[in-house]
Amino acid sequence: MKGSDYYNGRKVLITGGLGFIGSALAHRLLDLGARVTLIDSLIPQYGGNLFNIADIRERVCVNISDVRDPHAMQHLLEGQDLLFNLAGQTSHLDSMKEPEVDLEINCKSQLSILQTCRHVNPAIRIVFAGTRQIYGKPEYLPVDEAHPLRPVDVNGINKIAGEMYHQLYCTVYGIPCCVLRLTNTYGPRMRVKDARQTFLGIWLRQIIEGQAIRVFGDGSQRRDFNYVDDVVEALLLAGSAEQAIGKVYNLGSHEIISLKDLATLVVEVNSGGRYAMEPFSEELKKIDIGDYYGDFRRIEADLGWRPTVNLRDGLKRSLEYYRRFRKAYWD
Amino acid sequence: MKGSDYYNGRKVLITGGLGFIGSALAHRLLDLGARVTLIDSLIPQYGGNLFNIADIRERVCVNISDVRDPHAMQHLLEGQDLLFNLAGQTSHLDSMKEPEVDLEINCKSQLSILQTCRHVNPAIRIVFAGTRQIYGKPEYLPVDEAHPLRPVDVNGINKIAGEMYHQLYCTVYGIPCCVLRLTNTYGPRMRVKDARQTFLGIWLRQIIEGQAIRVFGDGSQRRDFNYVDDVVEALLLAGSAEQAIGKVYNLGSHEIISLKDLATLVVEVNSGGRYAMEPFSEELKKIDIGDYYGDFRRIEADLGWRPTVNLRDGLKRSLEYYRRFRKAYWD
Repeated sequence: MKGSDYYNGRKVLITGGLGFIGSALAHRLLDLGARVTLIDSLIPQYGGNLFNIADIRERVCVNISDVRDPHAMQHLLEGQDLLFNLAGQTSHLDSMKEPEVDLEINCKSQLSILQTCRHVNPAIRIVFAGTRQIYGKPEYLPVDEAHPLRPVDVNGINKIAGEMYHQLYCTVYGIPCCVLRLTNTYGPRMRVKDARQTFLGIWLRQIIEGQAIRVFGDGSQRRDFNYVDDVVEALLLAGSAEQAIGKVYNLGSHEIISLKDLATLVVEVNSGGRYAMEPFSEELKKIDIGDYYGDFRRIEADLGWRPTVNLRDGLKRSLEYYRRFRKAYWD
Repeated sequence: MKGSDYYNGRKVLITGGLGFIGSALAHRLLDLGARVTLIDSLIPQYGGNLFNIADIRERVCVNISDVRDPHAMQHLLEGQDLLFNLAGQTSHLDSMKEPEVDLEINCKSQLSILQTCRHVNPAIRIVFAGTRQIYGKPEYLPVDEAHPLRPVDVNGINKIAGEMYHQLYCTVYGIPCCVLRLTNTYGPRMRVKDARQTFLGIWLRQIIEGQAIRVFGDGSQRRDFNYVDDVVEALLLAGSAEQAIGKVYNLGSHEIISLKDLATLVVEVNSGGRYAMEPFSEELKKIDIGDYYGDFRRIEADLGWRPTVNLRDGLKRSLEYYRRFRKAYWD
């Protein structure tokens, strides 16, 4: 997006705007000249954190509300040029403990947002944050967008519905939507208080606190990771490129790494620390998907996106961030 | 199921039990010695009709309630051996007009039923009625169970969620579930008042009333059809066979027929009448899927199921039924 003035002066709404990715996106959008409104519910277990936008607080409009509130959403959606629809319940274990809540947020609210757009703002461009969780245990690697959908938790099922609603409203009502299926995103501003959002988050906290990183299973499971700035770039492309409309894209990385090697790398980048292996709980074993990494050639071919921040650099920046601002994230 | 005593004495609950397939299933289950409870909301636009069970009214327990009512459902699910989970919003156009209602019935209630089973009756065997609508426009024919899921309406999306919840609760919590993906089912007791449930239903009404059958599009779209008795047999097998647990099965037929040829056949079996071609409305054109017919070799191999009633016989029996009982269905 360098040099692009697509976002200059545009009115942009971000659901989950005080969260990890939403707040990073807000920073970039301000740089690009956009007029940014952030919606966030600030539910404590989720990723919203006012500290994430402390440095831009005066330059964005913040609206604390819940995507489950259709009246607030209607008011906020009117007149916007773009919606980055990032709000979601993302914890897999929480989705099993409270499946109805996950359904309310990840299915019902998405449908309600789209219905509202259809009625009050059908020209709004929407980018929806999907997830690689919908694939479940890979049948082949790397996983491309045509891979069967076999989610292993309620969250995965509801996220399928969420992205399918977006595709449907694009096809049937012409609302210009694009879906990105995110893989493990990490970096500054992520919630690292506990393991709810991602294991890498809690690892960063553990190593900074001098605790052993807890690696579950035998640590051989391979994964791909995207640094948050790369994901923000993908979101911006998905919201601006003509050819993104109606499409679904995987994100991913050429750096595939086992959890054990990742733990080793975190210790190395941190210049100290240790990790400890822990067997899977019965609960985790049932939903373990083994290796996962995504094929992102489609977005590379269509939009020219590819990740630019390698794991070592990304981890370094993340550790520096949390060391400096740990007070705002868990202390 | 001939000669089987699997259902003898078993307590069986059927959601949508006053509907087309539910009531036919209830008749068979009584023959097999089961103790049958029927749940139905009797929402006028849906398929429930007390006439469907008029002849067995004293031999079944009827409970008028809605699957959206979790308290009623909990009471009714306790102590049952089997659940045939057939209740659903099935109209594709209604799902576009009132997507939230479709979501409540086809997603939220399904999740709620499974949560209740998990807590009060985890050993209950469940057969869930899925639909071929979830495939959308076929990429290849016949469509097998591995075909990508590309639904063209809200109903299809919500039915995907519904069946995935069932599979998940089977995998994670051990609730023994089986999913059947039904294709066009027809026969006595279906709702034929309007085109909500299936076009073949309204055709039967039209020809009996001496009106022209309205064939939409160019009539070249090919489809497969199952007579209701064959579907009931598949349900009974899915609820009793060990190897059905955790599986998803297409139904289908070797008789593939274009809509135009089907209209001709209806006229022929009726010994009179006519059909008229009508162009697709814009609304229908957007969700038209072209040809569809399913590959049902998996259920044939696993459970020995195959359809036994050919279209000519099935249509004949259906026309006789509606001629005789039209008062109960539309007059």
